[in-house]
Amino acid sequence: MSSAIKELETKVAAARTAAKKLARLPTEVKNKALLSIAENLALYRNDIIEENKRDMAAADEANMSAAMQDRLMLNTTRIAGIATDVKTVAGLPDPVGEIFDSRTMPNGLQISRKRVPLGVIAAIYESRPNVTVDISTLCLKSGNAVILRGGKEAIHSNLALARIVQRSAYEAGVPDGAIQIIESTDRSVVDHMLKMSGQIDLVVPRGGAELIKFVASNAKMPVLAGGVGVCHTFVDKSAKLGDAVAIVYNAKVQRPTVCNALDTILVHAEIADAFLKALAPEFAKAGVELHCDWGSQQILQGTPGLKIVPATDKDWGKEYLALIAAVKVMKSLDEALEHIDRYGSGHSEAIVTEDKSNAARFLDEVDAACVYVNASTRFTDGGQFGLGAEVGISTQKFHARGPLGLKELTSYKWIIQGSGQVRP
Amino acid sequence: MSSAIKELETKVAAARTAAKKLARLPTEVKNKALLSIAENLALYRNDIIEENKRDMAAADEANMSAAMQDRLMLNTTRIAGIATDVKTVAGLPDPVGEIFDSRTMPNGLQISRKRVPLGVIAAIYESRPNVTVDISTLCLKSGNAVILRGGKEAIHSNLALARIVQRSAYEAGVPDGAIQIIESTDRSVVDHMLKMSGQIDLVVPRGGAELIKFVASNAKMPVLAGGVGVCHTFVDKSAKLGDAVAIVYNAKVQRPTVCNALDTILVHAEIADAFLKALAPEFAKAGVELHCDWGSQQILQGTPGLKIVPATDKDWGKEYLALIAAVKVMKSLDEALEHIDRYGSGHSEAIVTEDKSNAARFLDEVDAACVYVNASTRFTDGGQFGLGAEVGISTQKFHARGPLGLKELTSYKWIIQGSGQVRP
Repeated sequence: MSSAIKELETKVAAARTAAKKLARLPTEVKNKALLSIAENLALYRNDIIEENKRDMAAADEANMSAAMQDRLMLNTTRIAGIATDVKTVAGLPDPVGEIFDSRTMPNGLQISRKRVPLGVIAAIYESRPNVTVDISTLCLKSGNAVILRGGKEAIHSNLALARIVQRSAYEAGVPDGAIQIIESTDRSVVDHMLKMSGQIDLVVPRGGAELIKFVASNAKMPVLAGGVGVCHTFVDKSAKLGDAVAIVYNAKVQRPTVCNALDTILVHAEIADAFLKALAPEFAKAGVELHCDWGSQQILQGTPGLKIVPATDKDWGKEYLALIAAVKVMKSLDEALEHIDRYGSGHSEAIVTEDKSNAARFLDEVDAACVYVNASTRFTDGGQFGLGAEVGISTQKFHARGPLGLKELTSYKWIIQGSGQVRP
Repeated sequence: MSSAIKELETKVAAARTAAKKLARLPTEVKNKALLSIAENLALYRNDIIEENKRDMAAADEANMSAAMQDRLMLNTTRIAGIATDVKTVAGLPDPVGEIFDSRTMPNGLQISRKRVPLGVIAAIYESRPNVTVDISTLCLKSGNAVILRGGKEAIHSNLALARIVQRSAYEAGVPDGAIQIIESTDRSVVDHMLKMSGQIDLVVPRGGAELIKFVASNAKMPVLAGGVGVCHTFVDKSAKLGDAVAIVYNAKVQRPTVCNALDTILVHAEIADAFLKALAPEFAKAGVELHCDWGSQQILQGTPGLKIVPATDKDWGKEYLALIAAVKVMKSLDEALEHIDRYGSGHSEAIVTEDKSNAARFLDEVDAACVYVNASTRFTDGGQFGLGAEVGISTQKFHARGPLGLKELTSYKWIIQGSGQVRP
């Protein structure tokens, strides 16, 4: 066995042992640990930044793109932001121990479900070092032990952050071994990890589409994965123009690099001219490039400063993660529903309409994690939905869909209390 | 492509198309279909029995065991039982469309979760033909399309049952294609099916441990599986003797061939003599064979008519599915908890005790789908828990645990209604 695999197996075994105690750890201890993590992140920020500089230097040497380097970089402000998020997790209700679905059967049996942690959760992620803290604190609050496996390019930052999280947590009374970080950056670790279905209860991949696909198709245990967000907004003929422009603009421009940003604008033929002409100057100013079907191109061409490209088949169903959107004119709501059904990725889809029956049909017929009427798809987020922090956005239907909060990191057990009942 | 694979792909495609309509089918249509299925099962029972005879003849020729033949056999009474179960499903509340977790955010967004079907569910099962009806009616009520793949040995019975289910359902207005049965008994169908992760949303294996293991380790899509039920009952020193004898007797004898039947009796040393001596004559009468540790053997040997065998290491953690139980004397609750943690399969575990703090510890510390105080583990069942019919008992923690009712065959989507909100 290689030393990398040995490290993994030792740490997973320790996590399993810790998980049993962690499942019954009082909420106060968990919250105390979280507040101490937040405090120590701020206190030891210079140590973190120093380790981060080692990663940044290596990134520079490897000619990493500016966007990637930006994801990797930590500074005082960013560390303060991470610490604030940890405090938020401390303030969230503890899902563990919640009793629900209680009933008393005619034979007197008292039956309930009680929320329990899943056990040991493995997180496999890429260059953002904040994930080290996000996932470990969400696992801690939900009573799960965690195995962290971050990207090679962030290894020094991740180890520095994990050391602070571990020390703060253990000093506060969290069982030793509850938070594990894999130091080896050997690729074989991931392959081996995905086979440990008896010991790891769930894998959460966080990163690009390729990582997620690899994990989903190789893991022998359950996977809780987000994925591609190909988000459409359909501007119906009855839409309020001002709302439609504001919603589409926000969904595309406010943060174009994330999965809930708009990719394709579908617009009803009867409002296409007015809507696109109202939107065009705003998009021109923001530097948005539009990939237009024939109909929208006729309307938009000649808009001063607006970048227009004829759409090709590859534009439908494409996630841009950039200031680019596809545009297509629709003859009807039905055509829009068909387009979304064919090209959507089941993430976030919106309609802008004043027609109540069209709104109801859209909500009913679109099969996606989050379906919107008259709002920006950018709201798909645990915080915005009132769940507090989130582990990610699930585009799968099994177990949990949409923003994943603390509750989505739990299972339940049935508790049955009797007084001698036997089955007739 | 072989004709078997072609059949599978054609039927899965048809099921996917049907699933979209089925997801929005009114409850009344589903219930009408279910009642018609129940009626027609009774009406055409002779056709079913005739087809079943072909399977029985083949089974006889193949020297199938009497127990297996019994599972396969259908007669008027059994068909009436199946029809009654279908009527029960018609009477259950429709989970689809339920709105829950509603909230209005400070920005005015109205956010809810709405329960939706999973989509297309594949069922892979063995010799019991009733599964054809059970699973297809539970899928129908929960708005899911179903692909049925039963055992070769029951193919004629399954086809006859499925024809009645399909015809009754489609005549009542269920979309064509919603219920599919694979006619080919070629093994390659299962292998191919388990790879169709884009088209099949969930696989439910029902049958022996080997089938379940095969499906769980080869499926590329989510699996909802039960599995081995190694069930313990711990008789604590404070147990009421009468209750303890009745509970242990019931858990072992009432139906020994099922997964929630008792396998191992753990008994506190201080009550072992009294308890085992009270239980022994009952077990002797019922023909139960005991595999005893040294301590229990000292107490039990010489009981008239009782079969005793010294336990070996293989007895701990063994699922007998027969009138056999292992017995072990425990020094303490802690020892019992450790034994269950080590050898239990996470199905159903019970304590018999009058000590409230021991009861609380047992409920809290045992990690199993169903944890009992002072009742027989035989109650682990959808009907007994008030869920109505069940798809099976899950021993996994992800998505659903314990008895799987209609709700456990669903997912949800987030519905967000706004009035022009954009994200700041």
